Amino acid sequence: MTKILVIGAGAIGGFYGAKLSQVGAEVSIFCRSDFEVVKKSGIAIKSCFGDFHFTPKKTLCDLHDYEDEADFILVATKVLPEISVTDLIAPVLAKNSSIILLQNGIHIEKNVVNAFPNHHLISGIAFACVSREGSGIINHQDYGRLIIGDFPKGVSQKTIELAEMWKKSGVPCEVSENIQMERWKKLVWNAAFNPISVLTHGATTDKILSSKATKNLVKNVMQEVCILAEIDGFKLPKDVIEKNLEATLKMKPYKTSMLLDFEAKRKMEIEAILGNAINFAKRKSVATPYLSSLYGLLTCYQ
Amino acid sequence: MTKILVIGAGAIGGFYGAKLSQVGAEVSIFCRSDFEVVKKSGIAIKSCFGDFHFTPKKTLCDLHDYEDEADFILVATKVLPEISVTDLIAPVLAKNSSIILLQNGIHIEKNVVNAFPNHHLISGIAFACVSREGSGIINHQDYGRLIIGDFPKGVSQKTIELAEMWKKSGVPCEVSENIQMERWKKLVWNAAFNPISVLTHGATTDKILSSKATKNLVKNVMQEVCILAEIDGFKLPKDVIEKNLEATLKMKPYKTSMLLDFEAKRKMEIEAILGNAINFAKRKSVATPYLSSLYGLLTCYQ
Repeated sequence: MTKILVIGAGAIGGFYGAKLSQVGAEVSIFCRSDFEVVKKSGIAIKSCFGDFHFTPKKTLCDLHDYEDEADFILVATKVLPEISVTDLIAPVLAKNSSIILLQNGIHIEKNVVNAFPNHHLISGIAFACVSREGSGIINHQDYGRLIIGDFPKGVSQKTIELAEMWKKSGVPCEVSENIQMERWKKLVWNAAFNPISVLTHGATTDKILSSKATKNLVKNVMQEVCILAEIDGFKLPKDVIEKNLEATLKMKPYKTSMLLDFEAKRKMEIEAILGNAINFAKRKSVATPYLSSLYGLLTCYQ
Repeated sequence: MTKILVIGAGAIGGFYGAKLSQVGAEVSIFCRSDFEVVKKSGIAIKSCFGDFHFTPKKTLCDLHDYEDEADFILVATKVLPEISVTDLIAPVLAKNSSIILLQNGIHIEKNVVNAFPNHHLISGIAFACVSREGSGIINHQDYGRLIIGDFPKGVSQKTIELAEMWKKSGVPCEVSENIQMERWKKLVWNAAFNPISVLTHGATTDKILSSKATKNLVKNVMQEVCILAEIDGFKLPKDVIEKNLEATLKMKPYKTSMLLDFEAKRKMEIEAILGNAINFAKRKSVATPYLSSLYGLLTCYQ
């Protein structure tokens, strides 16, 4: 039986971990803030794929209490400077454990690959409206697609098997030979809409695109991301910006995850979404005035 | 006796008009929202220069009721697309009336000079913490310096006489041979701090400068304004940015006028502070990514 340990059992980790338990995986979770509730009652999952209840194999508030050898360590913490993923993983990493980073942003694999160069590393991104509604309650409202692939590239058999489990559970899960390019592609949208939604005091996606000057800003931010992606070796399709705008206009008005974090006074993933791209640009001596403007405004909050 | 008509008797117009009445000018005011109160009781002015009470010669809610010939028409409305200064002035403009535009922003004189090319036009900027505290109550908390000059340049005898009146009343009033350069110089500060204070959800000047990335944004915005000023024929001193930052750090933490407008749900002077500069840049084919980022975010509010 496949053993999975979820680290960071917020909305994303809780939901995608729970889905794997539905198809027979033995899923344990590490969660601090909800520990008491989850240990006692598990997690109630409301989902547009179907509601269900998830009882973890083990619920941990200290990773040193994990005595199994996980086949997969699913990391779904937020990407924040104060969270050290390598410190979290270290005590539970067995020889054959694969690490899955199901997180936002670009260049987030570096520390992990440096710390554990001999481990199988799967990088993944989620496209889902899913939120933690209360202690032990997760609400999956819409979407849910995953893209996973080996880091730095390729797709191994173990990654395919993982994708098959998610698919069997009802999660649309694609494998990608080029997961870093997928991260850049997702950043095109994220780098524009996440910060702008916060900086405009809570504008939803439709509102952002209804002002001509704001829409131009969206495009300019996206353009900078495309340029950086290409310099990083990942040339995105020419129409990626146009496609992103079209798709956004078709979505129902939507609050970005960064906006939800901001409104709930949680930390925002500013570094993963903007800082890493800006630092990469600096190393390559590329100017990113639009990204830097958003970054300069957002960092004033924290 | 010098006759003055103040149009737009908010904090700036009310205060600087009232000061002129203290030195013997016959000052009438046009105000709509506070008309009843001001007509009955005048304006109570709390000022760090000394409190006083101002009784206008005439209080008007319709400019067509003004029967005098003003020596000076002091325009102190906000600069907003929906306020037509030329429409306001037209019914009260006598042959020898000088027009004073005591307003924010750059390139704000154009419409007035086009509509009334044969009139003496004085352009002026105010550096003051002054706010309308309630109907018929103005609070002048700090600073108060004026710079005035003839538009497009030079200083006429009538402008000097006006400056002398303000100085006699206790207002530090400078005359400038080059008022457009003074407007650009003021814009260096305004274009950065006004928008950023709003977009950072209310950061005061000290907070804005305490984050490195936000401070960099301030500098980049200021740099763009300096470049535009030079293209417009007004080369600002090399150290203008450094001087602005130093001066701001010495000021007590301060909410910008745009932030006060935003918090009070009043319209913000986005066009005067950013839009006019960006449009000028477009005409000159100069990119202004920092100014445009701030503009794109702010216009989403309105």
